[in-house]
Formats: sequence, structure tokens, C-alpha cells
Amino acid sequence: MADTQPTDAVTMDKIVSLARRRGFVFPSSEIYGGLGSAYDYGHYGVLLKDNVKARWLEAMVRERDDIVALDSSIILHPRVWEASGHVTGFTDPLVDCRTCKLRFRADHLNDLEHEEVRCGKRPSKRPGETPDCDLTDARQFNLMFRTRVGAVEETGTDVYLRPETAQGIFVNFKNVAQLARRKPPFGIAQIGKSFRNEITPGNFIFRTLEFEQMEMEYFVPPGEADEWFRYWVDARASWHRRYGIRESYLRVREHDAEELSHYSSATSDIEYLFPMGWSELEGVANRGDYDLAQHTEHSGTKLEWVDGGSGERFVPHVIEPALGVNRSMLAFMIDAYDEEVVAERERTVLRLHPGLAPVKAAVLPLIGKSEDMVAKARALYEELQRHYAVEYDDGGAIGRRYRRQDEIGTPWGLTIDDQTLEDDTVTIRDRDSLAQERLPIGGVRSHLADLLTRDWTTPKPG
Amino acid sequence: MADTQPTDAVTMDKIVSLARRRGFVFPSSEIYGGLGSAYDYGHYGVLLKDNVKARWLEAMVRERDDIVALDSSIILHPRVWEASGHVTGFTDPLVDCRTCKLRFRADHLNDLEHEEVRCGKRPSKRPGETPDCDLTDARQFNLMFRTRVGAVEETGTDVYLRPETAQGIFVNFKNVAQLARRKPPFGIAQIGKSFRNEITPGNFIFRTLEFEQMEMEYFVPPGEADEWFRYWVDARASWHRRYGIRESYLRVREHDAEELSHYSSATSDIEYLFPMGWSELEGVANRGDYDLAQHTEHSGTKLEWVDGGSGERFVPHVIEPALGVNRSMLAFMIDAYDEEVVAERERTVLRLHPGLAPVKAAVLPLIGKSEDMVAKARALYEELQRHYAVEYDDGGAIGRRYRRQDEIGTPWGLTIDDQTLEDDTVTIRDRDSLAQERLPIGGVRSHLADLLTRDWTTPKPG
Repeated sequence: MADTQPTDAVTMDKIVSLARRRGFVFPSSEIYGGLGSAYDYGHYGVLLKDNVKARWLEAMVRERDDIVALDSSIILHPRVWEASGHVTGFTDPLVDCRTCKLRFRADHLNDLEHEEVRCGKRPSKRPGETPDCDLTDARQFNLMFRTRVGAVEETGTDVYLRPETAQGIFVNFKNVAQLARRKPPFGIAQIGKSFRNEITPGNFIFRTLEFEQMEMEYFVPPGEADEWFRYWVDARASWHRRYGIRESYLRVREHDAEELSHYSSATSDIEYLFPMGWSELEGVANRGDYDLAQHTEHSGTKLEWVDGGSGERFVPHVIEPALGVNRSMLAFMIDAYDEEVVAERERTVLRLHPGLAPVKAAVLPLIGKSEDMVAKARALYEELQRHYAVEYDDGGAIGRRYRRQDEIGTPWGLTIDDQTLEDDTVTIRDRDSLAQERLPIGGVRSHLADLLTRDWTTPKPG
Repeated sequence: MADTQPTDAVTMDKIVSLARRRGFVFPSSEIYGGLGSAYDYGHYGVLLKDNVKARWLEAMVRERDDIVALDSSIILHPRVWEASGHVTGFTDPLVDCRTCKLRFRADHLNDLEHEEVRCGKRPSKRPGETPDCDLTDARQFNLMFRTRVGAVEETGTDVYLRPETAQGIFVNFKNVAQLARRKPPFGIAQIGKSFRNEITPGNFIFRTLEFEQMEMEYFVPPGEADEWFRYWVDARASWHRRYGIRESYLRVREHDAEELSHYSSATSDIEYLFPMGWSELEGVANRGDYDLAQHTEHSGTKLEWVDGGSGERFVPHVIEPALGVNRSMLAFMIDAYDEEVVAERERTVLRLHPGLAPVKAAVLPLIGKSEDMVAKARALYEELQRHYAVEYDDGGAIGRRYRRQDEIGTPWGLTIDDQTLEDDTVTIRDRDSLAQERLPIGGVRSHLADLLTRDWTTPKPG
């Protein structure tokens, strides 16, 4: 998988440790021994994840005229998944070892060591190389979770937890198109949970059974599909760079013919250089007219664009950029992670884009026991709190409080000190440069507003 | 259920019709005949719902020092639901009619007519009154959706889709408490989907199988539980009023002993006068130490507060305000709905609080065919779009465009007209008063910023 290794100090272990230590991400159901690779998000994790979603929605919906939002159900009519091809086609080929009772993805056998399988306790050899490994033929297993609607087994209906949000968009195409006051190209964007019953989740929050997706289906005249496909590959790569992913850790890789999903005529992965190597960050697929044609056939409802004036009609082709929220958050954390020695002390710092940072500024009285400083600091905090995610902290040495904020990626520290009591100025400390300057306490809010609307896309080293 | 009827013109049918017509809410999987009472949210529905969640998070987390956010998995370890009492206790008593084959909740028989049951085609009589109705004894049916983790049936693990987000908070209590830099009272807030396999969902998005919850668990010293219970009933009722719910349509109703859930020692419902009568909007429960004690017993992990300094330790009691996002959105739409005659023309208007309104302002060139007006309007729109959810509309007569914005609840209309071309002023139209005033085009953004941070809690009539 990895053909290049990241060059700096970040490892997945360090990210997992920071995430745990500062309350970004906890193993789920931990007091009951955990549940496979499921994770719960703590305070800073929620704030960071919400910011990732907000920046995506901004770029995809609010700042454009041509894309609207949608939020469809997780449980859709079961025929949706027959039409989409998921009931028959959304499968992994699995093999069992009759000796060690472990189960593997047949198409991953060459990449795997026994240890990498969840319950593996065997020596580090590839399955099949171990003398006593006795593999079955591959069988296809569907990745959709199934459940039953209706209070009792005998009269219920089998339904699925969606494995992608996209189908909820396609089945609403007619509803949205009737309200759209424009002809294609136009898009429908959706953020929501999806579920895949994979046997090889892993790499922390990179791949989990339950995950959040940000998908957008862009409906275009058939003749324009190639052009829009290239447009969206570029636009999405720019978005990742805009919020801090370094250029040299991003690449675009086209799928070859065997790799393409059943619905796709072309797919490019925007890959990121994760600690385990280059891996998919976001996929951009040209789905052609596959989905609208399938749902037209299975539902009997014609899903096409009809121009009310000219009578022109066609089945749009679809370009889909699809990104996992959790995976995007992980990439941003990895790329932002840095360790350095400052004034002979080590610090860990998350150099997150201010638009992503869970906390925008920390208000810190230099001496936590000074009533005057505390009063000034609280007043400033309470003013800022009405507008921004800010923290107040008066506990312990100032250096320790700074380091705590550095670890959660807070871009600015506002310190109230002796001079504040004299002239009502505070220092503002920059997380990255560590530069400090003084400004009037009354001007902090507008200064912060100004900082937060700046374009922070600055190249990182490496 | 209903002992008072709403006095104005709003009915559920009108809300459903507006929601469909303007793309707030669509029946889910409609092209496949729908799926019970499942709904998908269109563009304005997503924006409104997102605003409801943002206002809740603001009030519960950002504007306070004592509550942190959490986002736990939908699929938790199955033992969580044994400990919580849901496996044995989260049931509805159901009876079947052997003649008509319909199924009813035994505890709702007296409220029901046959027509109200999903598949009912019988005359309008109560079950049991119909001569040929032949009811079975009541049986208990669990309301949790069950599914299976693991790729194959024989080795998988039965798990549940959470029926409430709260348990994800309790099982993370120790993680969060270790990071909390304060002693109780403190709270953990969570927004997320829950699932209940109910046989009597209904009333549009009031009760659905899949829904979003906003729950907060507030951990307090046992002796302070009653006081904090009263605090949260008041605080939550104030929140609904702050965002526009009229005083006279809100009431607080205490549960009597028989009505209490298995975990609760006291519960008060904040009820709203929905078109179908007074119904629960939000529940505030005193859960005592039930949940922490149960998880301590079942997991073997002591869930208690320990003061690092003094060594003081206790099991906190829990006060829980729990609100459905979809139900809250419905109440806000109902309360905001108004019809009136203006200048001899009828208009429908959603008088939504600006903090909830999906679109904050519409930019409208008076004459859509005037290139000069369009250019000015586009420039203003593109400036505002960087900061706010705004719309641009140049299609059709201005009156029609205003009415469209009224129906989706846009508080302000910004019109570019002949005078704009002369003196660079625009008119700003107020959705509710219909007052128009002129202001310089360069001052629109800051004027809008100012309007949006005002306190809009003004009493409505009735």
C-alpha cells in the first residue's frame, strides 16, 4: 500500500494518543471492552468534526448558487438497494481458514499478516504461507447491515442501513428537480451516517463500521460529464489544500478498469499520505446515468430533466465527490500535528486552520489567583463567548495552559496581565509563530473577527 | 389527548403542504411508494434543522462553562442495553385483532380509531367496539431495532440501533470526568440519530421511526438534584420561548407515578399546543443515579466522581433535558405559520426567528431583465454569501418573489431598483411588518450583522 513514507515525526500512535489524552476521540463502549473499531467523539472531536462539516457545506452549498442540501433517511425502502445494485453487488469476497478459524478478504490476502486480522493470534506470516492454513474458496458477503421494521418478526419488513448517502439523493431527484429553478448542471449535497459491515476496518477512525459521509451528486448534461468530472477533482483537491493539507501529501490517482465500482465509468481518488501510506481521502466518480436509469426502471417513475419551456428532456449524468467526515478530520489532524522544542521545552502543537480549530481563542489571566485579572479575563471571555468558541482557563502555570491550548490547536491565546490592570491592553499570542503583541481589550472581538475571516491558506513545509 | 384546540388557522395539513411545496420535507422513498412514516429533508428543511441544532448547542455548550459536547456511536456494545434496562424494559404492549389482523398498542386502545392505524380500512369505531373485533392478550414487544455485526450470520454479534443517545453519554462518563477540570455539576450534551421500532408513529415528523435527538445529561451532587431539575425545566422552557414559541402554547406537565419511565424519579414534559392537541415537546427527567449505578454493576467499572484533592467521592445524580430535533423544528414551523391578507392579496408567512430562518436575506433586482440592476444585485449577493445564508432571485414579478421568501421565512428582502442605480441605496423589507427603508448598499452587510445579533424575543399574539 505504502510506496512513500511520511517524512516527519507524526505516527498514527501519536494521533491516537493525543486524541485520547485531550478528549477528541475515545474507543466506543470501552467500559464493556469496546466494540470492534467503533469510536466516540469527545468535546474537541465534536467541535472539530462539526467544523469540517461546516466548511464543506459552506464550499459546496452556501458559497454557490447551483447546489442544494438534502438529508434523507438512513433506512430507505428496501427496493432502493435492489435498484442501486447493492443487494447483489455490494459484497466482499471472503475466505475462511479451516485451521485457525480466521476470516480474510480474498482480494486482500497478499497485503495481510495474520496479526492484522481482529482476532489473530498466529505468527506473522501471510495466510496460505502458514503450513497449517487451509483456506476455503471465496464466498461473497454483503456489506449492508440488515434490520427489520415492524414490531414483530413474522409481519415485519427487512430493511438495510444505508451503506452510502448517495441513493437518498437519487430517489429524491424528481422532488428536488421540480423545485430547482435552473436546468442542469445542478447538485444535491448531503451529510450523514452510513454503515458498512466490513471485516477489515482499522487504522483508527480511517475506516469504521459506522461513519459520516459528505456526498454531493452533480447532475450534468451527458455531453458535459467529462469536463465536470475534471472540474470536481480539481475543486475538491483545492478544498483540502484550502484548509491546510500540504500540497506534497496530496495526489490524484485514477482507478483502472478492474478497480471501478459497478456504477462508475471513471473514478479518481484524491489520496493523502497517511502514516500507513498513500490512501484514499476522497473519491470523485463519474456515475454516468447508471443510478437515475436504474431507479427509473425499478420504480416506474421517470427520472429525467424536462425543460418546462422548450420541452427539452434528457437523463443527466452524475459526478459525485464523496468524502468521509471522520477520515477528513483524521487527515487534518495528522497534517496539523507537529512537535518542536521551544525555549528548551518540547511542545506538541496542532497547526489546524482557524476555520477548523475546535477553540478559536483561550482567555487566560496570567495569575489565576489575582482577583483583578480574573475579573477582567472573565468579562472578556463572556463577551467573546457570545460569538465564538472560546475557552477560559485560570488553572496552573501559564506555560502549561498554553501547551494545553497548543495541543488542541487553539490559534490564539489572550492573556490578561499586570499591564492590563494599568492600561486595558491584553497580549495576543499566535499559536504557530509564538509572536505576542498587545492590543486594547475593547478591540479584541473585532480583531478576532478580522483574523477569522482572513485567508489562512499558507504553504506548510514538506 | 387534546383538551384545548389551537385558535388560529394553522393545521397539520397546511404545514405538510407548505413543507412539501417549498422543499422542507418530502415523504421518504416516495418513488417506491414510501416507507411508513419516514421523511427526507429538502434544502430549507436541512437549513432550518441545522439552525435548530446550532441554537441548542449554543445555549447548552458554547454559551456555558459547564457542559461539553459528545458524539457517540449509534451501534454500542450490546451489554450497554442490558445494563440500561432497555433489553427487558423498553417495550410496548401490543394486541392483535384476530379478525381484521390489525395491531394496536394495548395502552392506546381507548384513544384509537381503526383508521388511525397504518393499514386500517375498517369503519370508524374503537377496537373492541367493532362487533367482529377479536383481540388477543397483550404481548410485550421491544422497540429496539436489532442488527448483526460481523460478515456472516453464524459468527456475528447481535447489536441494537440506539433508541436514545443518553446511554452513549453514561458509558463515556469516566472518560469525560477525567478530562473535566471541574467537579459536578457539569453536563455532557449530544445530538444524534436514534431509532425506535414503534407501531404508531405519525403526525408528520412529530413521531418517526428514525429521528434526531438533542440530549444533555447533567451530573449533580445527589443533594442538589431537585433544585437542578427545576432549573432545567425553566431553562429549557425559556429556550423554546427565546426562539419564538408563544408563551400561551407552552405548558409544563409533571408525570404522575404510573407514567414514569423505569429510570426516572421525576419527569416533567414541556408540552406544546400542536394542531392535534397538547403533546410532549421536550422531556426533563430526574434519572437519579440509576444509569451510573447500572453501568457500574454491569461493567465492573466504578462510575463515580472522585475529587483528586480532597478524596471526596460520590455517584452523581443526573438531570436530563431531551428534545427531538424534528419535533422542535415542527413546533417552530407551526408557531411561525401565519396567513394574512396584505393589499388585498393573501400571503402565507413563516414568522421564524432570524436565528432559525433557513435564509437570512434575499437579494432581488426589481427588474430581472435590467442588466444594471442584476449586476448590482449579484455584487451585493456575492458579498453577503461569504458570511450568511442568502438567496438571489431575479425570476418573475417582485411580488411573487417576496411571497416565495415569506413562505420560507426569510426575514429580510433587499431590493435593487432604479434609485439604486442613481444613489447606491437599496430597500430592506421586513418580512413581518412589511416596512421598507432605504440604506446605502455598502452598509448592508454590517446592518445585517447587527440585525442578526439582536434579541428577537418578542411576544406573539395569542
